[in-house]
Amino acid sequence: MRRIADSTVRRLSLYLSALEAFESQGISTVSSEALATRGGTTSAQVRKDLSFFGSFGKRGLGYSVLALATRLRDILGLRRKYRLAFVGAGKMAGALVNYRGFQQRGFHIEAIYDVDPKKIGQAWNGLTVRNAKNLVAELRANPVDIGVIVTPADSAQDVADRLVQAGVPAILNFAPAQISTPDAVNVKHVNLTLELETLSYALRNR
Amino acid sequence: MRRIADSTVRRLSLYLSALEAFESQGISTVSSEALATRGGTTSAQVRKDLSFFGSFGKRGLGYSVLALATRLRDILGLRRKYRLAFVGAGKMAGALVNYRGFQQRGFHIEAIYDVDPKKIGQAWNGLTVRNAKNLVAELRANPVDIGVIVTPADSAQDVADRLVQAGVPAILNFAPAQISTPDAVNVKHVNLTLELETLSYALRNR
Repeated sequence: MRRIADSTVRRLSLYLSALEAFESQGISTVSSEALATRGGTTSAQVRKDLSFFGSFGKRGLGYSVLALATRLRDILGLRRKYRLAFVGAGKMAGALVNYRGFQQRGFHIEAIYDVDPKKIGQAWNGLTVRNAKNLVAELRANPVDIGVIVTPADSAQDVADRLVQAGVPAILNFAPAQISTPDAVNVKHVNLTLELETLSYALRNR
Repeated sequence: MRRIADSTVRRLSLYLSALEAFESQGISTVSSEALATRGGTTSAQVRKDLSFFGSFGKRGLGYSVLALATRLRDILGLRRKYRLAFVGAGKMAGALVNYRGFQQRGFHIEAIYDVDPKKIGQAWNGLTVRNAKNLVAELRANPVDIGVIVTPADSAQDVADRLVQAGVPAILNFAPAQISTPDAVNVKHVNLTLELETLSYALRNR
Protein backbone atom coordinates (compact mmCIF):
# COMPACT_ATOMS: atom_id res chain seq x y z
CA MET A 1 0.00 0.00 0.00
CA ARG A 2 1.17 3.50 -0.74
CA ARG A 3 2.26 5.70 2.10
CA ILE A 4 -0.38 8.34 2.75
CA ALA A 5 0.10 11.84 4.13
CA ASP A 6 -0.30 12.49 7.84
CA SER A 7 -3.07 15.01 7.12
CA THR A 8 -4.99 12.30 5.24
CA VAL A 9 -4.55 9.83 8.09
CA ARG A 10 -5.95 12.46 10.45
CA ARG A 11 -9.04 12.94 8.28
CA LEU A 12 -9.58 9.17 8.00
CA SER A 13 -9.52 9.03 11.79
CA LEU A 14 -12.19 11.74 11.95
CA TYR A 15 -14.34 9.94 9.34
CA LEU A 16 -14.10 6.77 11.44
CA SER A 17 -15.25 8.62 14.57
CA ALA A 18 -18.21 9.94 12.59
CA LEU A 19 -19.05 6.49 11.22
CA GLU A 20 -18.97 4.99 14.71
CA ALA A 21 -21.40 7.64 15.90
CA PHE A 22 -23.70 6.86 12.94
CA GLU A 23 -23.35 3.12 13.69
CA SER A 24 -24.43 3.64 17.30
CA GLN A 25 -27.49 5.54 16.04
CA GLY A 26 -28.46 2.66 13.75
CA ILE A 27 -27.73 4.64 10.56
CA SER A 28 -26.58 2.27 7.79
CA THR A 29 -25.65 4.58 4.90
CA VAL A 30 -24.04 8.00 4.95
CA SER A 31 -23.31 10.72 2.38
CA SER A 32 -19.90 12.22 1.69
CA GLU A 33 -21.40 15.54 2.84
CA ALA A 34 -22.15 14.15 6.31
CA LEU A 35 -18.61 12.80 6.61
CA ALA A 36 -17.19 16.10 5.34
CA THR A 37 -18.94 18.06 8.10
CA ARG A 38 -17.42 15.86 10.78
CA GLY A 39 -14.00 15.76 9.18
CA GLY A 40 -13.87 19.54 8.86
CA THR A 41 -13.49 19.28 5.10
CA THR A 42 -15.45 19.20 1.80
CA SER A 43 -17.39 16.31 0.27
CA ALA A 44 -15.02 16.42 -2.72
CA GLN A 45 -12.10 15.84 -0.32
CA VAL A 46 -13.95 12.95 1.34
CA ARG A 47 -14.53 11.27 -2.03
CA LYS A 48 -10.91 11.86 -2.99
CA ASP A 49 -9.59 10.48 0.34
CA LEU A 50 -11.73 7.36 0.13
CA SER A 51 -11.20 6.68 -3.59
CA PHE A 52 -7.52 6.40 -2.74
CA PHE A 53 -8.28 3.06 -1.03
CA GLY A 54 -10.67 1.71 -3.63
CA SER A 55 -14.33 2.37 -4.36
CA PHE A 56 -16.66 2.40 -1.35
CA GLY A 57 -19.66 4.50 -2.25
CA LYS A 58 -22.42 4.15 -4.83
CA ARG A 59 -23.44 7.29 -6.68
CA GLY A 60 -26.65 8.61 -5.15
CA LEU A 61 -26.73 5.96 -2.43
CA GLY A 62 -23.83 7.06 -0.26
CA TYR A 63 -21.44 4.88 1.71
CA SER A 64 -22.24 1.78 3.75
CA VAL A 65 -21.44 2.78 7.35
CA LEU A 66 -20.43 -0.74 8.39
CA ALA A 67 -18.30 -1.55 5.33
CA LEU A 68 -16.53 1.80 5.36
CA ALA A 69 -15.86 1.69 9.12
CA THR A 70 -14.38 -1.80 8.79
CA ARG A 71 -12.17 -0.71 5.91
CA LEU A 72 -10.98 2.40 7.77
CA ARG A 73 -10.17 0.37 10.88
CA ASP A 74 -8.13 -1.90 8.63
CA ILE A 75 -6.30 1.01 6.96
CA LEU A 76 -5.60 2.65 10.33
CA GLY A 77 -4.19 -0.58 11.75
CA LEU A 78 -6.96 -0.89 14.36
CA ARG A 79 -7.80 -4.54 13.75
CA ARG A 80 -4.98 -5.74 15.98
CA LYS A 81 -3.91 -5.37 19.60
CA TYR A 82 -1.17 -2.95 20.69
CA ARG A 83 0.93 -3.43 23.79
CA LEU A 84 1.69 -0.29 25.80
CA ALA A 85 4.17 0.44 28.57
CA PHE A 86 3.56 3.52 30.71
CA VAL A 87 6.48 5.33 32.29
CA GLY A 88 5.43 7.49 35.26
CA ALA A 89 2.84 6.22 37.73
CA GLY A 90 1.46 9.67 38.53
CA LYS A 91 -1.87 11.47 38.21
CA MET A 92 -1.62 11.79 34.45
CA ALA A 93 -1.21 8.01 34.05
CA GLY A 94 -4.16 7.51 36.41
CA ALA A 95 -6.31 9.82 34.32
CA LEU A 96 -5.30 8.17 31.04
CA VAL A 97 -5.97 4.65 32.20
CA ASN A 98 -9.63 5.65 32.53
CA TYR A 99 -9.75 6.90 28.98
CA ARG A 100 -11.93 4.39 27.18
CA GLY A 101 -10.39 5.25 23.79
CA PHE A 102 -7.36 3.12 24.68
CA GLN A 103 -9.44 -0.04 25.11
CA GLN A 104 -11.71 0.75 22.15
CA ARG A 105 -8.68 1.07 19.89
CA GLY A 106 -7.10 -2.17 21.13
CA PHE A 107 -4.40 -0.39 23.16
CA HIS A 108 -3.59 -2.53 26.19
CA ILE A 109 -1.44 -1.31 29.06
CA GLU A 110 0.99 -4.15 29.77
CA ALA A 111 3.40 -2.52 32.21
CA ILE A 112 3.91 0.65 34.25
CA TYR A 113 7.27 1.97 35.45
CA ASP A 114 8.36 4.59 37.96
CA VAL A 115 11.59 5.66 39.72
CA ASP A 116 9.96 6.43 43.08
CA PRO A 117 10.79 3.66 45.64
CA LYS A 118 7.46 4.40 47.36
CA LYS A 119 5.54 3.59 44.16
CA ILE A 120 7.59 0.60 42.95
CA GLY A 121 5.87 -2.65 43.89
CA GLN A 122 2.51 -0.97 44.52
CA ALA A 123 -0.67 -2.17 42.81
CA TRP A 124 -1.79 0.12 39.99
CA ASN A 125 -4.97 -0.61 38.02
CA GLY A 126 -4.37 -4.35 37.96
CA LEU A 127 -0.63 -3.98 37.34
CA THR A 128 2.33 -3.72 39.71
CA VAL A 129 4.51 -0.61 39.37
CA ARG A 130 7.97 -1.71 38.15
CA ASN A 131 11.37 -0.21 38.76
CA ALA A 132 12.30 2.07 35.85
CA LYS A 133 15.92 0.97 36.25
CA ASN A 134 14.96 -2.39 34.72
CA LEU A 135 12.98 -0.90 31.85
CA VAL A 136 15.45 -1.57 29.02
CA ALA A 137 16.11 -5.18 29.98
CA GLU A 138 12.46 -5.98 30.67
CA LEU A 139 11.09 -4.39 27.52
CA ARG A 140 13.73 -6.13 25.43
CA ALA A 141 12.54 -9.44 26.90
CA ASN A 142 8.84 -8.54 26.61
CA PRO A 143 8.53 -6.04 23.79
CA VAL A 144 5.76 -3.46 23.64
CA ASP A 145 4.52 -1.49 20.64
CA ILE A 146 4.17 1.92 22.26
CA GLY A 147 5.92 3.60 25.17
CA VAL A 148 3.77 6.23 26.90
CA ILE A 149 5.76 8.97 28.66
CA VAL A 150 3.77 10.47 31.55
CA THR A 151 6.71 11.73 33.60
CA PRO A 152 7.55 15.33 34.54
CA ALA A 153 9.16 17.34 31.73
CA ASP A 154 12.72 16.99 33.01
CA SER A 155 12.70 13.18 32.78
CA ALA A 156 11.11 12.92 29.34
CA GLN A 157 14.28 12.80 27.23
CA ASP A 158 15.97 10.25 29.50
CA VAL A 159 12.89 8.02 29.37
CA ALA A 160 12.68 8.40 25.59
CA ASP A 161 16.35 7.36 25.28
CA ARG A 162 15.68 4.24 27.33
CA LEU A 163 12.57 3.33 25.33
CA VAL A 164 14.61 3.67 22.12
CA GLN A 165 17.36 1.52 23.66
CA ALA A 166 14.76 -1.11 24.48
CA GLY A 167 13.68 -1.15 20.84
CA VAL A 168 10.22 0.38 21.35
CA PRO A 169 9.06 1.52 17.87
CA ALA A 170 6.58 4.26 18.89
CA ILE A 171 6.27 6.82 21.67
CA LEU A 172 3.28 8.78 22.91
CA ASN A 173 4.65 11.70 24.91
CA PHE A 174 2.41 13.49 27.42
CA ALA A 175 5.28 15.32 29.16
CA PRO A 176 5.45 19.05 28.38
CA ALA A 177 8.90 18.75 26.73
CA GLN A 178 10.11 18.07 23.22
CA ILE A 179 11.99 14.80 22.91
CA SER A 180 14.42 13.79 20.20
CA THR A 181 14.61 10.23 18.89
CA PRO A 182 16.00 8.46 15.82
CA ASP A 183 13.85 8.92 12.68
CA ALA A 184 12.74 5.28 12.73
CA VAL A 185 10.89 5.85 16.02
CA ASN A 186 7.40 7.29 15.67
CA VAL A 187 6.62 10.01 18.21
CA LYS A 188 3.31 11.74 18.97
CA HIS A 189 3.27 14.59 21.44
CA VAL A 190 0.09 15.39 23.37
CA ASN A 191 0.89 18.49 25.35
CA LEU A 192 -2.13 19.62 27.32
CA THR A 193 -0.23 22.31 29.21
CA LEU A 194 0.82 23.81 25.90
CA GLU A 195 -2.76 23.84 24.60
CA LEU A 196 -3.95 25.53 27.80
CA GLU A 197 -1.20 28.14 27.52
CA THR A 198 -1.86 28.97 23.88
CA LEU A 199 -5.52 29.44 24.89
CA SER A 200 -4.65 31.70 27.82
CA TYR A 201 -2.32 33.68 25.54
CA ALA A 202 -5.17 34.14 23.07
CA LEU A 203 -7.56 35.23 25.84
CA ARG A 204 -5.03 37.66 27.26
CA ASN A 205 -4.54 39.28 23.86
CA ARG A 206 -8.16 39.50 22.68
CA MET B 1 2.05 44.34 22.42
CA ARG B 2 2.59 42.86 18.99
CA ARG B 3 0.74 39.71 18.07
CA ILE B 4 3.13 36.77 18.04
CA ALA B 5 2.94 33.63 15.91
CA ASP B 6 1.31 30.50 17.29
CA SER B 7 4.58 28.57 16.82
CA THR B 8 6.38 31.14 19.01
CA VAL B 9 3.70 30.91 21.71
CA ARG B 10 4.19 27.14 21.70
CA ARG B 11 7.94 27.49 22.18
CA LEU B 12 7.45 30.02 25.00
CA SER B 13 5.20 27.47 26.71
CA LEU B 14 7.94 24.83 26.40
CA TYR B 15 10.57 27.24 27.77
CA LEU B 16 8.29 27.94 30.74
CA SER B 17 7.90 24.21 31.46
CA ALA B 18 11.69 23.90 31.38
CA LEU B 19 12.14 26.90 33.69
CA GLU B 20 9.64 25.48 36.18
CA ALA B 21 11.60 22.23 36.24
CA PHE B 22 14.84 24.17 36.85
CA GLU B 23 13.08 26.21 39.56
CA SER B 24 11.99 23.04 41.38
CA GLN B 25 15.60 21.82 41.26
CA GLY B 26 16.84 25.06 42.82
CA ILE B 27 18.68 26.19 39.69
CA SER B 28 18.72 30.00 39.50
CA THR B 29 20.30 30.74 36.10
CA VAL B 30 20.01 28.91 32.81
CA SER B 31 21.67 29.11 29.40
CA SER B 32 19.86 29.54 26.09
CA GLU B 33 21.31 26.13 25.13
CA ALA B 34 19.50 24.41 28.03
CA LEU B 35 16.21 26.07 27.06
CA ALA B 36 16.78 25.17 23.40
CA THR B 37 17.10 21.47 24.22
CA ARG B 38 13.75 21.48 26.02
CA GLY B 39 12.03 23.61 23.42
CA GLY B 40 13.19 21.37 20.58
CA THR B 41 14.98 24.27 18.94
CA THR B 42 18.35 26.10 18.70
CA SER B 43 19.91 28.52 21.18
CA ALA B 44 19.81 31.20 18.46
CA GLN B 45 16.05 30.72 18.21
CA VAL B 46 15.70 30.95 22.01
CA ARG B 47 17.59 34.25 22.06
CA LYS B 48 15.50 35.54 19.15
CA ASP B 49 12.22 34.50 20.79
CA LEU B 50 13.10 36.11 24.10
CA SER B 51 14.63 39.29 22.67
CA PHE B 52 11.22 39.89 21.11
CA PHE B 53 9.90 40.68 24.59
CA GLY B 54 12.85 42.72 25.81
CA SER B 55 16.25 41.77 27.14
CA PHE B 56 16.33 39.00 29.75
CA GLY B 57 19.76 37.45 29.62
CA LYS B 58 23.24 38.67 30.39
CA ARG B 59 25.99 37.64 28.00
CA GLY B 60 27.96 34.81 29.57
CA LEU B 61 25.70 34.62 32.63
CA GLY B 62 22.54 33.21 31.11
CA TYR B 63 18.96 33.94 32.09
CA SER B 64 17.56 34.34 35.59
CA VAL B 65 15.16 31.39 36.00
CA LEU B 66 12.79 33.26 38.30
CA ALA B 67 12.68 36.52 36.32
CA LEU B 68 12.25 34.79 32.99
CA ALA B 69 9.55 32.41 34.30
CA THR B 70 7.61 35.35 35.75
CA ARG B 71 7.86 37.27 32.48
CA LEU B 72 6.77 34.24 30.42
CA ARG B 73 3.77 33.64 32.72
CA ASP B 74 2.85 37.27 32.17
CA ILE B 75 3.21 37.02 28.38
CA LEU B 76 1.21 33.78 28.27
CA GLY B 77 -1.59 35.29 30.32
CA LEU B 78 -1.04 32.93 33.24
CA ARG B 79 -1.08 35.52 36.00
CA ARG B 80 -4.84 35.57 36.20
CA LYS B 81 -7.63 33.07 36.89
CA TYR B 82 -9.69 31.49 34.10
CA ARG B 83 -13.23 30.23 34.59
CA LEU B 84 -14.07 26.98 32.81
CA ALA B 85 -17.37 25.26 32.08
CA PHE B 86 -17.25 21.56 31.20
CA VAL B 87 -19.91 20.07 28.95
CA GLY B 88 -20.21 16.29 29.30
CA ALA B 89 -19.97 14.68 32.75
CA GLY B 90 -18.41 11.45 31.47
CA LYS B 91 -15.16 9.57 31.97
CA MET B 92 -13.12 12.05 30.00
CA ALA B 93 -14.24 14.93 32.23
CA GLY B 94 -13.47 12.79 35.28
CA ALA B 95 -9.96 12.13 33.99
CA LEU B 96 -9.34 15.79 33.16
CA VAL B 97 -10.47 17.12 36.50
CA ASN B 98 -7.57 15.20 38.05
CA TYR B 99 -5.10 16.81 35.70
CA ARG B 100 -3.08 19.11 37.92
CA GLY B 101 -2.08 21.31 34.96
CA PHE B 102 -5.51 22.96 35.11
CA GLN B 103 -5.03 24.15 38.67
CA GLN B 104 -1.37 25.08 38.16
CA ARG B 105 -2.32 27.31 35.24
CA GLY B 106 -5.16 28.99 37.16
CA PHE B 107 -7.90 27.17 35.23
CA HIS B 108 -10.87 26.69 37.57
CA ILE B 109 -13.82 24.50 36.72
CA GLU B 110 -16.89 26.56 37.63
CA ALA B 111 -19.67 24.45 36.15
CA ILE B 112 -20.37 21.09 34.53
CA TYR B 113 -23.27 20.31 32.19
CA ASP B 114 -24.82 17.15 30.82
CA VAL B 115 -28.00 16.13 28.98
CA ASP B 116 -28.48 12.83 30.83
CA PRO B 117 -31.36 13.10 33.37
CA LYS B 118 -29.57 10.48 35.52
CA LYS B 119 -26.50 12.69 35.80
CA ILE B 120 -28.21 16.08 36.19
CA GLY B 121 -28.34 17.09 39.85
CA GLN B 122 -25.63 14.62 40.87
CA ALA B 123 -22.55 15.69 42.79
CA TRP B 124 -19.42 15.82 40.64
CA ASN B 125 -16.04 16.79 42.12
CA GLY B 126 -17.51 19.47 44.36
CA LEU B 127 -19.94 20.72 41.70
CA THR B 128 -23.50 19.73 40.83
CA VAL B 129 -24.12 18.52 37.27
CA ARG B 130 -26.36 21.06 35.53
CA ASN B 131 -28.93 20.60 32.79
CA ALA B 132 -27.33 21.38 29.41
CA LYS B 133 -30.67 22.85 28.30
CA ASN B 134 -29.99 25.85 30.51
CA LEU B 135 -26.39 26.32 29.37
CA VAL B 136 -26.87 29.42 27.21
CA ALA B 137 -28.96 31.32 29.76
CA GLU B 138 -26.76 30.35 32.73
CA LEU B 139 -23.44 31.11 31.04
CA ARG B 140 -24.79 34.46 29.85
CA ALA B 141 -25.63 35.28 33.46
CA ASN B 142 -22.37 33.85 34.84
CA PRO B 143 -19.80 34.09 32.04
CA VAL B 144 -16.86 31.71 31.77
CA ASP B 145 -13.63 32.16 29.83
CA ILE B 146 -13.34 28.69 28.33
CA GLY B 147 -15.89 26.02 27.43
CA VAL B 148 -14.48 22.48 27.55
CA ILE B 149 -16.24 20.01 25.25
CA VAL B 150 -15.96 16.46 26.59
CA THR B 151 -19.05 15.01 24.91
CA PRO B 152 -19.23 12.23 22.31
CA ALA B 153 -18.30 13.32 18.78
CA ASP B 154 -21.86 13.66 17.53
CA SER B 155 -22.80 16.31 20.11
CA ALA B 156 -19.67 18.43 19.74
CA GLN B 157 -20.92 20.88 17.08
CA ASP B 158 -24.24 21.43 18.86
CA VAL B 159 -22.42 22.14 22.14
CA ALA B 160 -19.98 24.47 20.37
CA ASP B 161 -22.91 26.40 18.86
CA ARG B 162 -24.46 26.83 22.32
CA LEU B 163 -21.18 27.97 23.87
CA VAL B 164 -20.81 30.56 21.08
CA GLN B 165 -24.43 31.66 21.66
CA ALA B 166 -23.61 32.09 25.35
CA GLY B 167 -20.71 34.35 24.41
CA VAL B 168 -17.90 32.03 25.56
CA PRO B 169 -14.70 33.38 23.94
CA ALA B 170 -12.61 30.18 23.88
CA ILE B 171 -13.23 26.46 23.46
CA LEU B 172 -11.10 23.45 24.34
CA ASN B 173 -12.48 20.51 22.37
CA PHE B 174 -11.69 16.96 23.47
CA ALA B 175 -14.39 15.34 21.30
CA PRO B 176 -13.03 13.49 18.27
CA ALA B 177 -14.82 15.79 15.79
CA GLN B 178 -13.94 19.02 14.06
CA ILE B 179 -16.13 21.93 15.15
CA SER B 180 -16.72 25.17 13.29
CA THR B 181 -17.11 28.47 15.12
CA PRO B 182 -16.93 32.17 14.24
CA ASP B 183 -13.35 33.45 13.79
CA ALA B 184 -13.54 35.51 16.99
CA VAL B 185 -13.82 32.33 19.07
CA ASN B 186 -10.55 30.63 19.91
CA VAL B 187 -10.62 26.86 19.55
CA LYS B 188 -8.04 24.27 20.55
CA HIS B 189 -8.62 20.65 19.64
CA VAL B 190 -7.05 17.88 21.72
CA ASN B 191 -7.94 14.67 19.94
CA LEU B 192 -6.42 11.72 21.74
CA THR B 193 -8.24 9.15 19.57
CA LEU B 194 -6.72 10.77 16.52
CA GLU B 195 -3.19 10.65 17.99
CA LEU B 196 -3.65 6.97 18.85
CA GLU B 197 -4.88 6.21 15.33
CA THR B 198 -2.06 8.03 13.57
CA LEU B 199 0.32 5.98 15.76
CA SER B 200 -1.40 2.68 14.95
CA TYR B 201 -1.34 3.63 11.25
CA ALA B 202 2.41 4.26 11.50
CA LEU B 203 2.97 0.94 13.31
CA ARG B 204 0.89 -0.98 10.76
CA ASN B 205 2.90 0.49 7.89
CA ARG B 206 6.41 0.14 9.27
